[in-house]
Amino acid sequence: MVHNETSTGVTSDIAAVRRAIDAAGHPALLMVDTISGLACADYQHDGWGVDVTISGSQKGLMLPPGISFNAVSDKAIEASRRAQLPKSFWAWDEILEMNTSGYWPYTPNTNLLYGLNEALDMLLEEGLAQVFARHQRWAAGVRTAIECWGLEVQCQDPSVYSPVLTGVVMPEGIDADAVRRLIYQRFDLSLGTGLGKARGKMFRIGHLGDCNDLTLIATLGGCEAGLKLSGAKLEGSGVLAALDYFAAHPLDGAR
Amino acid sequence: MVHNETSTGVTSDIAAVRRAIDAAGHPALLMVDTISGLACADYQHDGWGVDVTISGSQKGLMLPPGISFNAVSDKAIEASRRAQLPKSFWAWDEILEMNTSGYWPYTPNTNLLYGLNEALDMLLEEGLAQVFARHQRWAAGVRTAIECWGLEVQCQDPSVYSPVLTGVVMPEGIDADAVRRLIYQRFDLSLGTGLGKARGKMFRIGHLGDCNDLTLIATLGGCEAGLKLSGAKLEGSGVLAALDYFAAHPLDGAR
Amino acid sequence: MVHNETSTGVTSDIAAVRRAIDAAGHPALLMVDTISGLACADYQHDGWGVDVTISGSQKGLMLPPGISFNAVSDKAIEASRRAQLPKSFWAWDEILEMNTSGYWPYTPNTNLLYGLNEALDMLLEEGLAQVFARHQRWAAGVRTAIECWGLEVQCQDPSVYSPVLTGVVMPEGIDADAVRRLIYQRFDLSLGTGLGKARGKMFRIGHLGDCNDLTLIATLGGCEAGLKLSGAKLEGSGVLAALDYFAAHPLDGAR
Amino acid sequence: MVHNETSTGVTSDIAAVRRAIDAAGHPALLMVDTISGLACADYQHDGWGVDVTISGSQKGLMLPPGISFNAVSDKAIEASRRAQLPKSFWAWDEILEMNTSGYWPYTPNTNLLYGLNEALDMLLEEGLAQVFARHQRWAAGVRTAIECWGLEVQCQDPSVYSPVLTGVVMPEGIDADAVRRLIYQRFDLSLGTGLGKARGKMFRIGHLGDCNDLTLIATLGGCEAGLKLSGAKLEGSGVLAALDYFAAHPLDGAR
Repeated sequence: MVHNETSTGVTSDIAAVRRAIDAAGHPALLMVDTISGLACADYQHDGWGVDVTISGSQKGLMLPPGISFNAVSDKAIEASRRAQLPKSFWAWDEILEMNTSGYWPYTPNTNLLYGLNEALDMLLEEGLAQVFARHQRWAAGVRTAIECWGLEVQCQDPSVYSPVLTGVVMPEGIDADAVRRLIYQRFDLSLGTGLGKARGKMFRIGHLGDCNDLTLIATLGGCEAGLKLSGAKLEGSGVLAALDYFAAHPLDGAR
Repeated sequence: MVHNETSTGVTSDIAAVRRAIDAAGHPALLMVDTISGLACADYQHDGWGVDVTISGSQKGLMLPPGISFNAVSDKAIEASRRAQLPKSFWAWDEILEMNTSGYWPYTPNTNLLYGLNEALDMLLEEGLAQVFARHQRWAAGVRTAIECWGLEVQCQDPSVYSPVLTGVVMPEGIDADAVRRLIYQRFDLSLGTGLGKARGKMFRIGHLGDCNDLTLIATLGGCEAGLKLSGAKLEGSGVLAALDYFAAHPLDGAR
Repeated sequence: MVHNETSTGVTSDIAAVRRAIDAAGHPALLMVDTISGLACADYQHDGWGVDVTISGSQKGLMLPPGISFNAVSDKAIEASRRAQLPKSFWAWDEILEMNTSGYWPYTPNTNLLYGLNEALDMLLEEGLAQVFARHQRWAAGVRTAIECWGLEVQCQDPSVYSPVLTGVVMPEGIDADAVRRLIYQRFDLSLGTGLGKARGKMFRIGHLGDCNDLTLIATLGGCEAGLKLSGAKLEGSGVLAALDYFAAHPLDGAR
Repeated sequence: MVHNETSTGVTSDIAAVRRAIDAAGHPALLMVDTISGLACADYQHDGWGVDVTISGSQKGLMLPPGISFNAVSDKAIEASRRAQLPKSFWAWDEILEMNTSGYWPYTPNTNLLYGLNEALDMLLEEGLAQVFARHQRWAAGVRTAIECWGLEVQCQDPSVYSPVLTGVVMPEGIDADAVRRLIYQRFDLSLGTGLGKARGKMFRIGHLGDCNDLTLIATLGGCEAGLKLSGAKLEGSGVLAALDYFAAHPLDGAR
């Protein structure tokens, strides 16, 4: 399952799924993709009983794309060793052995490992609780803007709003990808496209990693101007609403 | 004289000064500081009859600080050679001779020379007319915001508005440096302080080099929120006014 | 099969294998790993009738590790589409479709793509014939050094000497890994270890990508001093032999 | 006076000059240029009674060129304040005042200040005694090579050999600049030219900052090959002599 669904801006309750598996007495392994969630929202591989966690460098870890990571439980390792199927991704023995001495069986992306070291220092210096609160606050500011525009947030359930990105549903008759294209051409701002069924119906605003209140104001400014230039009737100024929100809600211990 | 006055946001009419000197038949050399003006606003060392031009890397040339440049007229070189005073800055013979073969008498800032090469390629590819129009448009957007706030632009004469930076005069009772400090702490945005007589009475917004409409919206957002948090009564939203201005005035051939 | 065997310093005759497959009328696909060979030695995916080629960024392309590449023949694509087995690495349809518009189905290593663009410009400006000749010359210089030491090159067949790296076989009683460790500690030089059966019996000297005659002299200097400090009896100075070789054999059109 | 004479590879006894000035009861200020000496050889602004010290970023501090530094004694500051002459370089009041709060009166080279911070951390972590010993050892290795070639070190007095660079005097009939040019073209190695009276008679080998034994072996290799290609009769191999020297003289606590 996916910890933070990048295509929709919805989070999942990993611990609840684990409890359900356990309640059913089912032996299935629990695998979680937290590529976009890690270091933005709380995530507990051990605490939540996850068997296989997958993440990557290019989201909350604030690095260029180029490396991904696995965390695996003893149960998963045991299953991997017993499994009869031919496997490559799931053949962990070699990398586990090499990792004990700090090496890899194949050539690692050395440069990003230096970056990862620095990124982790930055995150730990800030404190994970602060990091998570920072992302929640940005998400709340962005949702305030969307509400003020009179538009809908893609995620319908407030209890699973993503602190990482927010999907903006287009009003009737507005093609999200045409808006995105106009915003890119006029304002040099690249927004995430709607994926799959949501294609053309929404676009996505990221609010994660190394950004701040004002880079989000810039982003919302580009969205607001682009929507208006595309003929969308907005009920109010989301930019101002978000700016007021950020001004009224200082982040305690903000850096 | 100064081509673009960084402390106030006022430009000077260099050619007019040259004409006045010539009309008076005065032998004075004309020296111009265009450190913040070069590559933001039109500047013509030869065309305007300037004798000594001084510029630097860290403004319109979009580089880190670290190198500055001189352009000198034949008349200035001649005066330098005839001058009896002991001189160091003005002793150009050695550097002029070395420059003919592409070298310097002392160790140059090699790294910035590579950067300069790239920056000049970027500016020439865009075209200087476009570069200057881009800066004028940003300045107009920022002034629109200030006007909408009900505040004054430091420069009182529209014919000499700077395309590089704009000074914002504080309303009665608001300390510009306290506002700047609050904006820096709350929004991670660093604004230029008022200098000399203007200290505490204004702050400065730069709109030059490698920025775009939305980075200016971010800047104006930080200013607007900071002014309000500081108790300033603003007549309207400058952020929205600037956003509307930028949306309504696309830059022809914008990159 | 492997184009350039990194663990031994031996190249393979890809075209001959293709001819043998064809002569036998066998339908097998020909897959070649040229991770360390590409851009060091001639390689012809189409000309040699290769079906699947695999390469990477971190060798002849002079980039950090982090991206790898596939070239696939029509025959391989056809086989992939007909194949019944579940597949992930070999499921090319999605990436082939996205690549036509310059995109990827997953997040690419954007930074290295910029680097790749620059690296390819550098290689093409130099000319591939010159690039290959440059590597052959370095390899010849390194073998001259090894011969002068009275040691053996790991590759016994001169017709398949690698232009990319050369394995140095230790004299009786000398542990290659102890020599490598001493060289690393004393001279800050990291040499490739012997792999598999060759472990402890040889070490490997790379001579590829962005190096030059003198960086190889430095490398050979570290090897020579390290071997002597480890008690190896050398017949002569390989450093001097290589230096003489490089001096006597200028690379035509050397940059 | 100059702490380490870059054009000849000779150091000066700063403390002795101070003692001589004091013994003569002369009020002169003592100004020292340690641009190439600082962080390579011991230097004590306060301990040696220097009044004005000048240094720069691009030598022992291992940074690109772009910033220089002054250290000034109370006596020098006092003299500056009393002096009647118009002054710019020597007008320290403004910068001294700004520096107390960590700022500069003019735009500083911010990027190099970050680099300086890192460079100083590296030097202090290694320990200055170790840094100085490292440079002395490299200089001794290079002189061993020159002696083995049968050539002369430019500096005739062993008590003032420079730990930073060494001048190599050409044998009769060999033009140093022709040798330098050949070495540059054939081996991509750039050596310092002879300056002033020494032009054409010597070249200079730097051994400072971020280098190691093997980069010096590479340098000496380029010199040796270039001298021989230029027709110089060398008595022996300086490369081998230096390699033996470095092997026989490990640096205690070498990194």
